[in-house]
Amino acid sequence: MVNNKAVSGGLEWRVRVADGSSSAVLVPESGIFQRIWQGIVGLVLGIIRKVRNFFVKAWDVGVDDPRKVMHCLKVGVALTVVSLFYYMRPLYEGVGGTAMWAVLTVVVIFEYTVGATLCKSLNRATGTFLAGALAVGVHWVASQSGERFEPIIIRSSVFILATSATFSRFIPVVKARFDYGAMIFILTFSLVAISGYRVDNLFDLAQERLSTIVIGGSMCLLISMLICPIWAGQDLHFLVARNMEKLATSLDGCVGEYFKDSEDALEIDEESRKNFQGYKCVLNSKASEEALANFARWEPGHGRFSFRHPWKQYLKIGASLRSCAYCIEALNGCINSEILAPEFIKEHLSGVSMQLTSHSSTVLKELAHITKTMRRTSTLDFAIEDMKNAVQDLHDALKSIPSQLITSQLQVDEEALLQEKKTTDPITQPTSIPLIEVLPTYYCSFING
Amino acid sequence: MVNNKAVSGGLEWRVRVADGSSSAVLVPESGIFQRIWQGIVGLVLGIIRKVRNFFVKAWDVGVDDPRKVMHCLKVGVALTVVSLFYYMRPLYEGVGGTAMWAVLTVVVIFEYTVGATLCKSLNRATGTFLAGALAVGVHWVASQSGERFEPIIIRSSVFILATSATFSRFIPVVKARFDYGAMIFILTFSLVAISGYRVDNLFDLAQERLSTIVIGGSMCLLISMLICPIWAGQDLHFLVARNMEKLATSLDGCVGEYFKDSEDALEIDEESRKNFQGYKCVLNSKASEEALANFARWEPGHGRFSFRHPWKQYLKIGASLRSCAYCIEALNGCINSEILAPEFIKEHLSGVSMQLTSHSSTVLKELAHITKTMRRTSTLDFAIEDMKNAVQDLHDALKSIPSQLITSQLQVDEEALLQEKKTTDPITQPTSIPLIEVLPTYYCSFING
Repeated sequence: MVNNKAVSGGLEWRVRVADGSSSAVLVPESGIFQRIWQGIVGLVLGIIRKVRNFFVKAWDVGVDDPRKVMHCLKVGVALTVVSLFYYMRPLYEGVGGTAMWAVLTVVVIFEYTVGATLCKSLNRATGTFLAGALAVGVHWVASQSGERFEPIIIRSSVFILATSATFSRFIPVVKARFDYGAMIFILTFSLVAISGYRVDNLFDLAQERLSTIVIGGSMCLLISMLICPIWAGQDLHFLVARNMEKLATSLDGCVGEYFKDSEDALEIDEESRKNFQGYKCVLNSKASEEALANFARWEPGHGRFSFRHPWKQYLKIGASLRSCAYCIEALNGCINSEILAPEFIKEHLSGVSMQLTSHSSTVLKELAHITKTMRRTSTLDFAIEDMKNAVQDLHDALKSIPSQLITSQLQVDEEALLQEKKTTDPITQPTSIPLIEVLPTYYCSFING
Repeated sequence: MVNNKAVSGGLEWRVRVADGSSSAVLVPESGIFQRIWQGIVGLVLGIIRKVRNFFVKAWDVGVDDPRKVMHCLKVGVALTVVSLFYYMRPLYEGVGGTAMWAVLTVVVIFEYTVGATLCKSLNRATGTFLAGALAVGVHWVASQSGERFEPIIIRSSVFILATSATFSRFIPVVKARFDYGAMIFILTFSLVAISGYRVDNLFDLAQERLSTIVIGGSMCLLISMLICPIWAGQDLHFLVARNMEKLATSLDGCVGEYFKDSEDALEIDEESRKNFQGYKCVLNSKASEEALANFARWEPGHGRFSFRHPWKQYLKIGASLRSCAYCIEALNGCINSEILAPEFIKEHLSGVSMQLTSHSSTVLKELAHITKTMRRTSTLDFAIEDMKNAVQDLHDALKSIPSQLITSQLQVDEEALLQEKKTTDPITQPTSIPLIEVLPTYYCSFING
């Protein structure tokens, strides 16, 4: 029932169906091996594509902020230096073979900014010292109370202290500043207290651990502060200034887009659209601002920032900027809305609104400039005065809307009477008003606040 | 020149000034010791107050979420169990004295949610395994290349791998999921590669470290999953539902507050004000939502959530909810604004606006209920239909504003003519309009999106 013959170098399988009425040619679907091969090639190509994308992304990260590359090199240097404790016999014997802890410390506490590194190293040193002292004390008490009670006392102390220290990590104050210290406290206490059961010279263990941590920590701090230091405070400072600039650009773009002639509306290029979406970064900047402010308070004085620089004020400015960004988000909603204000109101308000926007964004840009240079100029006062005048102009323009409406309504009524046909209502959707009205309120509160 | 006499049981110091014209009484300023004593008492009282506040806060944290207390107990139990490796000789000898790593693993990877614990333990195990294998390989190569090149090869491999692994932590994909794994990779590689210079049985070291990590990790996972598990996925699910409810309450409160009679305005109690500020939590929920979604994807199926539950969708819902929250923030700005809409427009729109708000918040509450119960009901469709009708009603009400304006403007003009005095313009500030207009746009986009 089945016959096969060579066809053009391959095999053709022909099946005659039982009733003999027809026969079907079974074309091998390009061969099992070929399919497997194609699958493998596809897989490999997919992996290559993914790996390439990964490296492209990595390259972008490096090009975007070369300081990150510098940080990685610093980590490498710190590890290489600390590993000298292994390679040089006198150093190795000096720390009693616990050089491992120095390596561990470097890997764990070397963070991107100086503040974060300082925060972690101080937390680690303090946590280790407190826990070590406490564990040695508990161990002494336990060893005095006989062989039977010793493990019970140690184990219950570990349980109680670990439980309460873990709980303390949920309390906001501790979580913000001493989270890592609390973890290290639990770690060291457990290690020292439990090891005490097996190790005789417990005091030496605790002391060696502390000294290697101090060596590793000071190595990190030196490298982090002396070679191209990255200060959290400075980063926060410029982040806030950059956010002001982004808001100014977004504001200009957003209002400009709204009052643009409808014919031009389709011609917005991707570049400018991307530019005026900058306020979205501001919307989500809370977490990074708080982290930076938290680290900045640990940093010593640097550049134009003293030790007790009022970092908390940056958070307040950040909150004000976010309020502005919420406002721009609402304005943006008006642009994308299907409901639009009638043309004559738009025309009536276009000039004053653009004027106000331009003055507001000048104020923001001036604020950004002042923040960056940390020098107050008189230009800001003039800009604010101009902005206030623009607000007044807008109010005047808004006041004159009712008469405009009456004129337009009367026109419509006349047309309706004359032409006796359905008229379109000129003020179906007065949505455009928020666009202009919300601005002065927010900007004034921003300037006054 | 100086005489003293007893005055009412104390001493009075009298100084005669050189010219003899007058004498001044030196009253001891309540005594130096007394002042020091008062200072000490003040300090102690201050410390006691701070400590009491700290414990009050801690108590609140515990009462607010008893699962946190449970988590702390679980950590305590895990540590106690793992410390058995020290107390039982066969166990201690089984892991070759490296029981320390098990304790360390438990302290470091036991996190609040199952997802976070799983993420950390898998990261730790994988990082340790990869780095251990690589380090043993590098060490073998180094040992083959003679005593002179051995430290050079090892040190440069540590430098290169530490630098590149640190860099990989900046790449968003790695940062979100494998940050901890990358750190552990650097840690283990450095430790094993560098120790190799001093330790002979390197393979044993790597293997012991891995096995203790596996013991510690599986202990954490068992306790975390079996005793009162806290699932990141479930938390995310209820967080999103709770945010919907908060938005509904805020919306009701905000619009209700706006349209309240001005006489009642002063009588807002703190409780209701606090209630309708709930949307502020939604504004800042991005970071916690992303963290929870990130951990949830590591979790196995639990409750009504399968392993591949679409956790990313929650982030989209969260983004929509935040858009609504931005909008409520803008509405809230209108309430606090000094510029208010004229009374007659407020009255004209009050009914329809309240209607729309009530329907919108019903929809939100219904959505929250559906999310919580994971059961679709037909009530939602009716609620959405009602909301759409309310939007239409509002549009109709807005359409009729121009004629209202004309009437009111004519009245004003007449009054001005009759009384010949300065009139207040009835439509100085049409700010109330955004309050009602922005709502339907956002809610419709929320429902459709």
